[in-house]
Amino acid sequence: MRRGEPGREIPLVEIDGVVWDATPLGDFDPRFWADGGPQRIRELVASGRLQRWHEDNTRFGAPVRSPSAVICIGQNYAQHAAESGSEPPQRPIVFLKTPNTLAGPDDTVTIARGSHKTDWEVELGVVIGSRASYCDSAAEAARHIGGYVLANDLSERAFQIEESGGQWSKGKCSPGYMPLGPWVVTADEFDPGDVRLRSWVNGEPRQDSRTSDMIFDCAELVRDLSQYMCLEPGDIVSTGTPQGVALSGRFSYLRPGDVVEVEIERLGRQRQEYREWRE
Amino acid sequence: MRRGEPGREIPLVEIDGVVWDATPLGDFDPRFWADGGPQRIRELVASGRLQRWHEDNTRFGAPVRSPSAVICIGQNYAQHAAESGSEPPQRPIVFLKTPNTLAGPDDTVTIARGSHKTDWEVELGVVIGSRASYCDSAAEAARHIGGYVLANDLSERAFQIEESGGQWSKGKCSPGYMPLGPWVVTADEFDPGDVRLRSWVNGEPRQDSRTSDMIFDCAELVRDLSQYMCLEPGDIVSTGTPQGVALSGRFSYLRPGDVVEVEIERLGRQRQEYREWRE
Repeated sequence: MRRGEPGREIPLVEIDGVVWDATPLGDFDPRFWADGGPQRIRELVASGRLQRWHEDNTRFGAPVRSPSAVICIGQNYAQHAAESGSEPPQRPIVFLKTPNTLAGPDDTVTIARGSHKTDWEVELGVVIGSRASYCDSAAEAARHIGGYVLANDLSERAFQIEESGGQWSKGKCSPGYMPLGPWVVTADEFDPGDVRLRSWVNGEPRQDSRTSDMIFDCAELVRDLSQYMCLEPGDIVSTGTPQGVALSGRFSYLRPGDVVEVEIERLGRQRQEYREWRE
Repeated sequence: MRRGEPGREIPLVEIDGVVWDATPLGDFDPRFWADGGPQRIRELVASGRLQRWHEDNTRFGAPVRSPSAVICIGQNYAQHAAESGSEPPQRPIVFLKTPNTLAGPDDTVTIARGSHKTDWEVELGVVIGSRASYCDSAAEAARHIGGYVLANDLSERAFQIEESGGQWSKGKCSPGYMPLGPWVVTADEFDPGDVRLRSWVNGEPRQDSRTSDMIFDCAELVRDLSQYMCLEPGDIVSTGTPQGVALSGRFSYLRPGDVVEVEIERLGRQRQEYREWRE
């Protein structure tokens, strides 16, 4: 995890209930993952070269810094595809968010200027641990997964669908529209196969599904993506959202004053207040 | 420009026909643009603190390093929209490439594994000079443009259209599929309004148009994009390609052994050989 004020977060790691200051390894950026960061942290802790961190109430930042790419999967839960008015896809549908959409998990979200259709999407995020290109099997792809993280793939549906000419990125890149965290769990300690994902708006339940309902699982997504692009250490692959978003027509889009919470078992919980854009 | 072997390029600047080694300013990355790099270079040259570079035949690298985003515009020339089977768009169509697609302008391109529909796209690229968010006019947006650069937005049409579920990024992100350069011309020295863009395959002409045929011009594109995302210093906005690509059905897709050249007046020329992917 990374904690502290925006732009001054300290990288931290929790092992067996003890939190360590990982600053000697640098920040949790692409280099951290490329240089085998998780293993190096264990070595530094074992050799007594990290300081303990005494937890306080400081803000959580996004636990991944400056990824080269934030890659998203569309309509990867059959029931969400249905509520969006689409058939389940035959192959993963891929779009990108700009990395500057990343925000802390509990940061206040400024609704984009002119937005009337801002929508939540709880998602399981994969953090790429090592470069993945042309993986020949899901098993090979799985070895490139460094960890897992909770994401809220905020979307502006008018920008995404009505003003876009059909290409979704226009509705996915407003500033702060990718709250991430609070923490990354390394791949050796997390089984993504069947965990519960939930979201709430003002305390009322919205999404409530399990990753076992994903059409393409995490390893298969990495395998497929690696045929089309080179995934870099520290990149994020957000694996799609289940049913229960405003796009379905069953719920209102977000308004100033609303509070969104999203949660995935073992990956923590986010809570964002939404406010109006002002000059 | 940046010259040298991959990963070891030296940043260079040409002023009034003299080439200077800009290494003291760091590389041409987002920080260079954020810190007012072009102005700082002029000051360093004026104060005699840069070394002259004696031009040789070293490779050109991409003249922009590690942008936070590579943003592309689709169907921004009416005749290309027509050859793609589409009406001219009412608003800019936006998609993203991963930044690791960037390559030197003359680097050999490895055709993606399994590709039978790799296609060329000569494009005018805008380099963002300062952060742009919610610009209220094209004039305001223009002040955030740092420079202009030649790009070849290589595309794999089966990946982009047939295997994508309609989202184009899947066919835009293969490794090396964004040759960039040879150089950036700063915005004060380049008028993007009416320059000629051309491409050739094996010496035969393909595209030959002018930027005056663009549906949305560079400043208007930056203004529009800034409503939907925050453009960062060093980001690239590739402004779309004119008619004359293989997707039209009038020409064959690229095969190993082919040579593609692209050129924009005053922004130089690229020449790439294409080779087959091998393990």
